[in-house]
Amino acid sequence: MTDQSHTPTDAPSPGASHTMSGIENEYYSQEVHGPYETYSLGEFELAEGETLPDCQIAYTTFGELNDAKDNAILFPHMYSGTSKDMELYVGEEMALDPQTYFIILPNQIGGGLSTSPHNTPPPYGQADFPNVRISDDVRAQQQLVTEKFGIDEIELVLGWSMGAQQTYEWAVRYPEMVKRAAPIGGTARNPPQSSLLVDALISAFKLDPNWNDGYYDDHRSMRQGLRQHARTWVLMGTSADLWREEEWRAAGFSSLDDFMHRLWDEWFLPMDPNNLIRMAWKWKHADVSRMTDGNLESALEQIEARVYVLPFEEDMVFTLEDNRLEEEMIPDSELRPIPTPWGHFGMFGFRPEDKEFIDTAIGELLDESVA
Amino acid sequence: MTDQSHTPTDAPSPGASHTMSGIENEYYSQEVHGPYETYSLGEFELAEGETLPDCQIAYTTFGELNDAKDNAILFPHMYSGTSKDMELYVGEEMALDPQTYFIILPNQIGGGLSTSPHNTPPPYGQADFPNVRISDDVRAQQQLVTEKFGIDEIELVLGWSMGAQQTYEWAVRYPEMVKRAAPIGGTARNPPQSSLLVDALISAFKLDPNWNDGYYDDHRSMRQGLRQHARTWVLMGTSADLWREEEWRAAGFSSLDDFMHRLWDEWFLPMDPNNLIRMAWKWKHADVSRMTDGNLESALEQIEARVYVLPFEEDMVFTLEDNRLEEEMIPDSELRPIPTPWGHFGMFGFRPEDKEFIDTAIGELLDESVA
Repeated sequence: MTDQSHTPTDAPSPGASHTMSGIENEYYSQEVHGPYETYSLGEFELAEGETLPDCQIAYTTFGELNDAKDNAILFPHMYSGTSKDMELYVGEEMALDPQTYFIILPNQIGGGLSTSPHNTPPPYGQADFPNVRISDDVRAQQQLVTEKFGIDEIELVLGWSMGAQQTYEWAVRYPEMVKRAAPIGGTARNPPQSSLLVDALISAFKLDPNWNDGYYDDHRSMRQGLRQHARTWVLMGTSADLWREEEWRAAGFSSLDDFMHRLWDEWFLPMDPNNLIRMAWKWKHADVSRMTDGNLESALEQIEARVYVLPFEEDMVFTLEDNRLEEEMIPDSELRPIPTPWGHFGMFGFRPEDKEFIDTAIGELLDESVA
Repeated sequence: MTDQSHTPTDAPSPGASHTMSGIENEYYSQEVHGPYETYSLGEFELAEGETLPDCQIAYTTFGELNDAKDNAILFPHMYSGTSKDMELYVGEEMALDPQTYFIILPNQIGGGLSTSPHNTPPPYGQADFPNVRISDDVRAQQQLVTEKFGIDEIELVLGWSMGAQQTYEWAVRYPEMVKRAAPIGGTARNPPQSSLLVDALISAFKLDPNWNDGYYDDHRSMRQGLRQHARTWVLMGTSADLWREEEWRAAGFSSLDDFMHRLWDEWFLPMDPNNLIRMAWKWKHADVSRMTDGNLESALEQIEARVYVLPFEEDMVFTLEDNRLEEEMIPDSELRPIPTPWGHFGMFGFRPEDKEFIDTAIGELLDESVA
């Protein structure tokens, strides 16, 4: 995405005010992830019962909302990501074309740009930040979409990993609002092995000698825990083929160490562990069947959208089989496995053909006429 | 294996002398893993150049060596295991029948019963223990087999995981001595993703606040690192199916927490991290092509044994594909994937049909007449 095609609806709000009220972390800033705007939800009651006094949702948009307000696309982001990371799939030569669509990229609560542990003052800052659920994000996004933009039907909701979890929550919670849905590399109910991965990721932080019950002075003092977290994630987020065939070379890395340091450590080390922990908890507990007394089939049956379920063939976190089992329960759906040695991390688009496969699928879904 | 069918060749030697010379750890004892014997190799020069002044190999045997000395089977063990763990596959109603065969179960250097970091006095104790290679174990076992027992041909070498690594090393290093080989859930050259798992396992220990560069006072103070190590291993050592289908229930666990605590924490927490680290380094660097200037095909072509390659279908550490690629290079071999949701941990035999599948394969291999 070039800067030119970025057309923010409003002038970017200064990110500094957020950053100053919690722990200083220049990573979560307009400079790195902007431009973005924020929408204030005011007091926002979370599913788990606590209330964030001033909940802000950061978001960015591309394209223009048309007069009929029927060209909106919503594209929430994955774990450890921000709206910026989704821009890879937005562009004039792509399915998510801002000349046609009004594309909204919301940021997760706890993701670092929206209200998050690191930027929240007492009593909810750092380790005291309450647990947030996928449903909280989706309710917040629904407020943004309806109150701020007056949209009552969305052409397509899509997302990867935790973005897929949000996509499913949207399709089940607001079936009348979602015309099409494309969950990519994620499921409606988090698989148990994926939950065990979350546990291992969180405990990596707690093992760090500087953890201090989450009241570390500076995220940089947590680099050992952040690295252990990164290395554990990479094990499960990839596939044996990626390593055996050294597919990472084609992505421009000169050695395995180069790949590990310059991609994965570089990705995670600037982040705030409390932010990651709150996102991870949300990921672990994602489950649309919370809306139907634990009955997953009943929940998925409520989906009215046309759905493309897009798993990565060798994904070890949200496996092909996990996706297949859910897809069978979704009325108007199709399973389209993405063949890539990158496993769960296929969405990063390190291999041009993966990005193209996904872009093509999104295009075909958008081309389908939906009642 | 009942106690009755256990027929040690010599009286067990006291394990206490070992334990007293390093760190106290009652886990590595005759009481827990015995009875076993020890064979002294004296000064033993390791592949990496350092010399262990008094290298002892612990081992146990079942059955009697016949006069022709042609009924021997060698069955080395996996990472974090001991000879005791292999006894599951030895018994009168099984392929490894001590009424027919003389079955030797050797213990790895660094495994806790043989010479290991925790039981070695300065200058080689604890974190100062030298790096050991699979080839060191195999050379040590070859001394045991030839010098102690006068055996010059082995009916079958088999092993799981690191045991499979030792099996391959045997078949390539001493092709004229190995008539049959059954590597189970392991490869001749460690796959790169398996190496990344090792890195994550080792760094889990180093993250523990009590690590102290490997000079912790007591392995019990390392329980956080040991638990992180356990939980990371379990992620990769199983399969998504195991968790989705809750197959662990059939193994007698009442809940996921019960399974995690009572099986995996219970397994790893009594162990010495330095022992595990030395085994892990060995695992990571396993590669038979070290004998052929890095040419894996040349190494595997040297194998004269009849080989059954037995991967676990859903193994994420030593994948089916990793196994298939190697099997194609082995002259007289057959690929026999083991269908189980337990992934790499299928060898534990929690599912009776897995144990039976493996036992049947071993039996069929032993029944094959080999030139």
